[in-house]
Amino acid sequence: MADRNSPIGVFDSGIGGLTVAREIMRQMPEERIVYFGDTARVPYGNKSQETVIRFTGQIIRFLLTKDVKAIVIACNTATAYALDVVERELQLPIVGVIHAGAKIAAESTRNGKIGVIGTEGTIRSGGYTKAIKSMKPGVEVTGKPCPLLVPLVEEGLLHDSVTDEIASRYLSELKGKYIDTLVLGCTHYPLLRSTIGRLMGPEVTLVNPAYETALELKQILEDKNLICNKEETAEEKHCFYVSDLAEKFTSFASSILPEDVRETKQINIEEY
Amino acid sequence: MADRNSPIGVFDSGIGGLTVAREIMRQMPEERIVYFGDTARVPYGNKSQETVIRFTGQIIRFLLTKDVKAIVIACNTATAYALDVVERELQLPIVGVIHAGAKIAAESTRNGKIGVIGTEGTIRSGGYTKAIKSMKPGVEVTGKPCPLLVPLVEEGLLHDSVTDEIASRYLSELKGKYIDTLVLGCTHYPLLRSTIGRLMGPEVTLVNPAYETALELKQILEDKNLICNKEETAEEKHCFYVSDLAEKFTSFASSILPEDVRETKQINIEEY
Repeated sequence: MADRNSPIGVFDSGIGGLTVAREIMRQMPEERIVYFGDTARVPYGNKSQETVIRFTGQIIRFLLTKDVKAIVIACNTATAYALDVVERELQLPIVGVIHAGAKIAAESTRNGKIGVIGTEGTIRSGGYTKAIKSMKPGVEVTGKPCPLLVPLVEEGLLHDSVTDEIASRYLSELKGKYIDTLVLGCTHYPLLRSTIGRLMGPEVTLVNPAYETALELKQILEDKNLICNKEETAEEKHCFYVSDLAEKFTSFASSILPEDVRETKQINIEEY
Repeated sequence: MADRNSPIGVFDSGIGGLTVAREIMRQMPEERIVYFGDTARVPYGNKSQETVIRFTGQIIRFLLTKDVKAIVIACNTATAYALDVVERELQLPIVGVIHAGAKIAAESTRNGKIGVIGTEGTIRSGGYTKAIKSMKPGVEVTGKPCPLLVPLVEEGLLHDSVTDEIASRYLSELKGKYIDTLVLGCTHYPLLRSTIGRLMGPEVTLVNPAYETALELKQILEDKNLICNKEETAEEKHCFYVSDLAEKFTSFASSILPEDVRETKQINIEEY
């Protein structure tokens, strides 16, 4: 049904999912990506499951108009709330970020104590806890919502005393649990990796699901004979769409992706 | 055309506009309010003018289905970006929060130096500056976007060292300009009034547009013979609608309004 040379659809509530797109580009440089960031309705982390499922459905319908061969939910909240629902109805392979993150966390822990930080939605859903326990029963998983970290990252306060103070408050509970593994369960958090690493100390392994999600996607595409087999010659290999503020997105995306983004198109996602 | 006993429509991107609804309830206790909070797409402050105009249009179409006699845009960003556009197309009286706030600021200043704090959208629009200068040419208006104050308020950090530090950074530029009047140009900021007042010092007058907006609305309703003239007997005088998380809204609204909110209804605003 799907063409192996079709693009891969990747989406997020905004810019965070670009950290996942970047890993896919690094690990599968021949693949084309159609990225959508829902910048008109960002953030998702403090909204309800019902609303996040509706938004996710609209985005998937949009990506299907781009003839994608597979879809990556590059957003922890949308994975936590909507993956189970949408994968039942979809004929294409669909990958979220939680399974891959949970897998490395379960493999990494030595003392059986794992922490997960994320948005309120991601933590409330219990998605990471369920996934980790299904892979390694008996581990202790402690989730901690960190709602202020996303706005602090979006304001660029990556190395700042205020971010240190807020992160320190959020992480103190996890330190008290003597975790040895911490899942960065929100695509913005890898940008605070050095702060979080310093606060948790060198004995705690930080897990970034983006890398492993790209590996999981590659495996699925190989299993289904969907790996691209032609060298792309088009000038614009990847396509970027947002629901608002295309120029701001272009500039941010260019700063974190391995290649410059020339143009981002704005669409009205509510029409899908 | 409009019935004087119809309700007043009031809307905001979320909960902040309740501070305006509260002033209307205090000043016109006989009036009924239909409130809408766009909690599925909150915040508006960091989104584009085009998107905020589209969201505002949908909300006004929804409020019109409730037969409102007048509309209050209880959101600074939506007022800044959309009021001029929507009032041209509307047959009903419509009031934003900026005109009233600008008026008190222009009247209050003694040294002709006024500061305005708000979201990125409100400050970028220059709405307050234009309004103040049209009332009192020659004054110096300095706008300062304070994007982190809304998330800090929504996390409940009203009296907290981190909020002090962030507010202090935002306000230092305005202190350096020797302003004597500061407009709290975002409906969340009155909740930080004591912190902002302490940082700015007793010589600076803080202007909260909510109170004056309710006065302006009352004057307009009187001029147009639209003041309610019957005692409402229905059990639920006011009606509350949101696009997401109705229960959370009900609990917050009950905590700041003069009377308990029994129920908030959730609607899909994208259908309007």
